[in-house]
Amino acid sequence: MYKFGVDVGGTTIKIGLFTAEGELLEKFEIPTDKSENGSHIIGHIAVKLNEIITGKGFLTEDCFGIGIGLPGPVDDTGRVLGCVNLGWGIVEIEREMSQQFHGRLVKAGNDANVAALGEAVAGAGYQRKNLVMVTLGTGVGGGIIVNGDILTGANGAAGEIGHITVNPEETQRCNCGKCGCLEQYASATGVVRIAKQLTEKYKQSELIEHIDELTAKDVFDAAKRQDALAREAVAVLGKYLGMALSSVVCVTNPEAIVFGGGVSRAGQILFDEVEKNFVKYVFSPSRHVEFLPAKLGNDAGIYGAAALIDRG
Amino acid sequence: MYKFGVDVGGTTIKIGLFTAEGELLEKFEIPTDKSENGSHIIGHIAVKLNEIITGKGFLTEDCFGIGIGLPGPVDDTGRVLGCVNLGWGIVEIEREMSQQFHGRLVKAGNDANVAALGEAVAGAGYQRKNLVMVTLGTGVGGGIIVNGDILTGANGAAGEIGHITVNPEETQRCNCGKCGCLEQYASATGVVRIAKQLTEKYKQSELIEHIDELTAKDVFDAAKRQDALAREAVAVLGKYLGMALSSVVCVTNPEAIVFGGGVSRAGQILFDEVEKNFVKYVFSPSRHVEFLPAKLGNDAGIYGAAALIDRG
Repeated sequence: MYKFGVDVGGTTIKIGLFTAEGELLEKFEIPTDKSENGSHIIGHIAVKLNEIITGKGFLTEDCFGIGIGLPGPVDDTGRVLGCVNLGWGIVEIEREMSQQFHGRLVKAGNDANVAALGEAVAGAGYQRKNLVMVTLGTGVGGGIIVNGDILTGANGAAGEIGHITVNPEETQRCNCGKCGCLEQYASATGVVRIAKQLTEKYKQSELIEHIDELTAKDVFDAAKRQDALAREAVAVLGKYLGMALSSVVCVTNPEAIVFGGGVSRAGQILFDEVEKNFVKYVFSPSRHVEFLPAKLGNDAGIYGAAALIDRG
Repeated sequence: MYKFGVDVGGTTIKIGLFTAEGELLEKFEIPTDKSENGSHIIGHIAVKLNEIITGKGFLTEDCFGIGIGLPGPVDDTGRVLGCVNLGWGIVEIEREMSQQFHGRLVKAGNDANVAALGEAVAGAGYQRKNLVMVTLGTGVGGGIIVNGDILTGANGAAGEIGHITVNPEETQRCNCGKCGCLEQYASATGVVRIAKQLTEKYKQSELIEHIDELTAKDVFDAAKRQDALAREAVAVLGKYLGMALSSVVCVTNPEAIVFGGGVSRAGQILFDEVEKNFVKYVFSPSRHVEFLPAKLGNDAGIYGAAALIDRG
């Protein structure tokens, strides 16, 4: 018996072939064809899955199921309620994928939630039943694991930590349309945005010279060298991320918070700044939370997708 | 077959006798004996339960179980991790209660969580699988229902909405020890505290005269009469409660929010103020949330406690 974990992104589709017990046997990747509103995507996945099992000499009857992570909210009935990055509207993904692949069991989930599940079953959160994952990338994503399962919510939109309002006084808009979201401060683009706002205050900063091409990594590297502008930008990120996580912890009381995404690679300086604020804002009965760096990197999605098959 | 729902409070213990299907047959109440660190409480409950079934001519074998709500965090192993109001430290409540009552099944939960479950199974949230309950009383309590079950968290402290930090600039301390908690603005004591802070600004307010005996109801009544001080106090409550609920909804994506507790009886003026802010701060994919007044009042606890028996 074997199963597949599929992670559908805007650029590539990652596919993992797993044993029924969740051991990764081999990884594959195909480009995401977004032409004609992404209408070829499901077919391309099916073709690739068939190619894989033919190559291995596996039988379709031995396929335990296909788990699939998608960049959009997925509801309890197995529908994805739109994926802007793929050009999709509402798609009955579980039914359609199953039709295209020999009627096998298909389970779908939101990609950030599925990555959290991956870290919970096979990564940083191994053997922890209650955890929060926050992904600090271009945006800020989140996924919440409760009793070993994804918290999906009424229409698949739970765990959207990046859109918690942390600064009601903010006047610039987030991509989501409102103002003051965590994502505006704690994402890669967010920390650069904050740094740029501080140039007037810190004219001596080493960042001024290449301010137009500034990256989040530049900001953290300069902060490690004690650049005052960079340190203040990191402090702003830490304040809002620490505060938002304290709210999430107040609501969900997890054992651990797993940090993923490019910004999390800044390491200790980030953790220190977040923890300092977290401890200040968190409700004390919930404060014993481990801060853990994600372990699976880009493979969290395929691991989590494969794990979806084991859950109801 | 029958079951019991027990709601242990600091003053009284409420007991509901239910059919196995959850229909309330009769209610009982005994005083809470807090002497000797509350060590008689479990025994008193057992005596009362025996008295009830003897009176009815019921058999102990026909008791489907006893659900019990307690004013403290309850973990997955059936222990309550301290109840300050009862004088309790850690108590293995499920085991001890079962020993005292014929070895029947006992399930325990935190009182705010159990009340949320009660509203979900038999009250305002009837037939809704995902909801948030917020109780605006002397403090601000909360309970979260995910897929029909209580979100308890790693050590029973999930759903503590009242201790979300909503104002990082606050200098006065909450009872919990930190500053800027929702409870400092949205509880009965909180709205009175805010009103008192506004007396310098609104010297003509009708509230000034009896400011020392001010109640939350006075503030809402004056706000309905357009008193400027009262309106501002209600606006502050609405801003912070709307913001905090938007964070909770961002994390849990419920179908409905149920409002309970004395402050919620202020009615439409409260809902309007909260909703205005909620809509401003909430992530749009999660915004379709019904605001519902609680239906069961003080009986939510016994209904929810009885419902605990049906869950794992």
